[in-house]
Amino acid sequence: MTKLRLFTPGPAMVPEEVLLTMARPVDHHRTAQFRAVFEDVTKHLQYLFGTKGACLTLTGSGTCAAEAAIVSCLPKGHKALVCDGGKFGERWGKICDAFGIANTKYKLDWGHGFKPEGVKKMLDADKSIDTVIVTHSETSTAAVSDVQGIAKVTRERDVLLIVDGITAVGAIPVKMDEWGVDVIITGSQKALMLPPGLGFVAVNDRAWKRIDGGTTPTYYNNLKAYRKSMAGNDTPFTSANVMILGLQVVLHRVKEEGLESIWKRVATMARATREAAVAMGMKVFAADPSDSVTALWVPEGVDEKTLRKSLRSKYGMQIAGGQDHLEGKIIRIGHMGYIDVFDALSVIGALELVLLEQRYKLEPGVGLAAAQRVIARG
Amino acid sequence: MTKLRLFTPGPAMVPEEVLLTMARPVDHHRTAQFRAVFEDVTKHLQYLFGTKGACLTLTGSGTCAAEAAIVSCLPKGHKALVCDGGKFGERWGKICDAFGIANTKYKLDWGHGFKPEGVKKMLDADKSIDTVIVTHSETSTAAVSDVQGIAKVTRERDVLLIVDGITAVGAIPVKMDEWGVDVIITGSQKALMLPPGLGFVAVNDRAWKRIDGGTTPTYYNNLKAYRKSMAGNDTPFTSANVMILGLQVVLHRVKEEGLESIWKRVATMARATREAAVAMGMKVFAADPSDSVTALWVPEGVDEKTLRKSLRSKYGMQIAGGQDHLEGKIIRIGHMGYIDVFDALSVIGALELVLLEQRYKLEPGVGLAAAQRVIARG
Repeated sequence: MTKLRLFTPGPAMVPEEVLLTMARPVDHHRTAQFRAVFEDVTKHLQYLFGTKGACLTLTGSGTCAAEAAIVSCLPKGHKALVCDGGKFGERWGKICDAFGIANTKYKLDWGHGFKPEGVKKMLDADKSIDTVIVTHSETSTAAVSDVQGIAKVTRERDVLLIVDGITAVGAIPVKMDEWGVDVIITGSQKALMLPPGLGFVAVNDRAWKRIDGGTTPTYYNNLKAYRKSMAGNDTPFTSANVMILGLQVVLHRVKEEGLESIWKRVATMARATREAAVAMGMKVFAADPSDSVTALWVPEGVDEKTLRKSLRSKYGMQIAGGQDHLEGKIIRIGHMGYIDVFDALSVIGALELVLLEQRYKLEPGVGLAAAQRVIARG
Repeated sequence: MTKLRLFTPGPAMVPEEVLLTMARPVDHHRTAQFRAVFEDVTKHLQYLFGTKGACLTLTGSGTCAAEAAIVSCLPKGHKALVCDGGKFGERWGKICDAFGIANTKYKLDWGHGFKPEGVKKMLDADKSIDTVIVTHSETSTAAVSDVQGIAKVTRERDVLLIVDGITAVGAIPVKMDEWGVDVIITGSQKALMLPPGLGFVAVNDRAWKRIDGGTTPTYYNNLKAYRKSMAGNDTPFTSANVMILGLQVVLHRVKEEGLESIWKRVATMARATREAAVAMGMKVFAADPSDSVTALWVPEGVDEKTLRKSLRSKYGMQIAGGQDHLEGKIIRIGHMGYIDVFDALSVIGALELVLLEQRYKLEPGVGLAAAQRVIARG
């Protein structure tokens, strides 16, 4: 028997209850029934993001939401500081470039998170920058940035802060209004325990002021159109309504478990995985590790491709490899979605087995025991 | 017992088999397993569109696919003739305007389809127009345009033809290569019997030449990125992979039934509905009626809102009303998706009942009998 278990940092595992809700006969999206669902979902998204601002739902991937945020917030005359410490930070820069948006790339070595001091220095050096774009949890490197600290810097100035919360929102602490973040985006297939297909953009009043002050070359990703439709609990274009039904189930589960409990559960799984890895003689890749996903160096003498292939074919477990120059060098294990500490133990157990297969020196159970010590501490 | 039946011109009914396929445990999209599915899907999309060209799958609604086609095919220096005979023709014009794309709107009264002679005249009058955008089956008015004839006109000149096939592809005859159409878009929630969430763009070599000849301000909707990824049976951004699994099931069903048979089935349902309406003393709205959706004038003395509400609450049937200035004046009944002649009879039967409820003069069964005569002829 091989049971499929997804430990990729998105898509993540989806609760059966959500899958079955989405498998119900499809209804139309311009109905009173659907508008009631959409109103409830939007209210619960505010809880998720920690904001009283607008939470807009787009049909598209996280990149779609990113483009919507960037293009809407950066009409001609504005300039962005793009914090680029990995594949996704890099993508935000590419979006700016594609639309001819003025920007400065602030690069850090992969695995490092952005800190307020660094951002402050960059803003001091170029007063024409009025927008900061930062990836909270960089999925490609499993590194976390200090968004709360960076928001303190941008809040003090006339600088807008756009945060990529794709592997952060719903997994690690994100408090949009309390921290003073202006825009946060996320996607459905990470902590939101849904398949890919929905993107979300949360927008505060400061950001709306910016958005309303300019016109940008966009139609499908025009946030103003989404805001207008949202007033009637609707979307400007046909939405992936079936996924929104699933989202409602997810958001009720999130509310019931409580964000604080979820953050704690995710942090425990991450710490357990990191300590297990160290006990197994492995090294954590990120200097500033995120709790939503863990990246580990592949030990010398171990073939990454064989390791991942074996995890999948023998044990039904899917983890992620490294991207770009990290291909073959790191593995990434997600802690998001419909996943608990026992799932975390499963993947550590399987990892021990596939390492042993490659004659890696390891006392069976040493990783599991280290993880269990973390879990027992709670 | 109230059974839900969707007769909206999208979303349409989805086969149970497809719903259950999409309810299977979610897997990752960057796997050999998924690439095999995507390769198969892409091949079957070519059959659907009638093309040897690239068939690209985007995560987004039909409008997303429309934006991708327009923006990619109309870099600076090109000019479009936008055939605008309804809500969706109008939307294509708005997309052009949002991106600052030069265009002339060619307006026809709602309910009329575009003909080759008209397009030819417009092209003759303005030699700077090098692109024609036409909606094959205009969902808002249920009118069909002569795309085959228009393609003859554009093929003869150095003019690109972009077709909105959203309620056409998979429902009424569309033969991309044979007719010489350069770009066709469609969405998942119409004839493709899926929930909303996927958009498709089919592109021939002539269109690629245009696309490769310019740069446009776009990132998420950049067709070049989709083409590049498709070479490896992949997508540039995270795809709605669960829907693509459902799509595979749908496309195999389409192949099995055969496009010719599907076109015939849809045409029979449309004709049956039109003849039923006439027998019931109602009038067909469109001068050039499409076979994928039928629009009917609401008879005098009948309240459209009450009629649709009653259809839904008493009989579980959802049909669509009119948009913009046609609100309250017409109803629209779709013939797309997981639907057969007996479903078509159901909605005609229910329509008779809700009309009788409003004291509309009608001999019960007169519509059904007229429809049945069409069905019996085959």
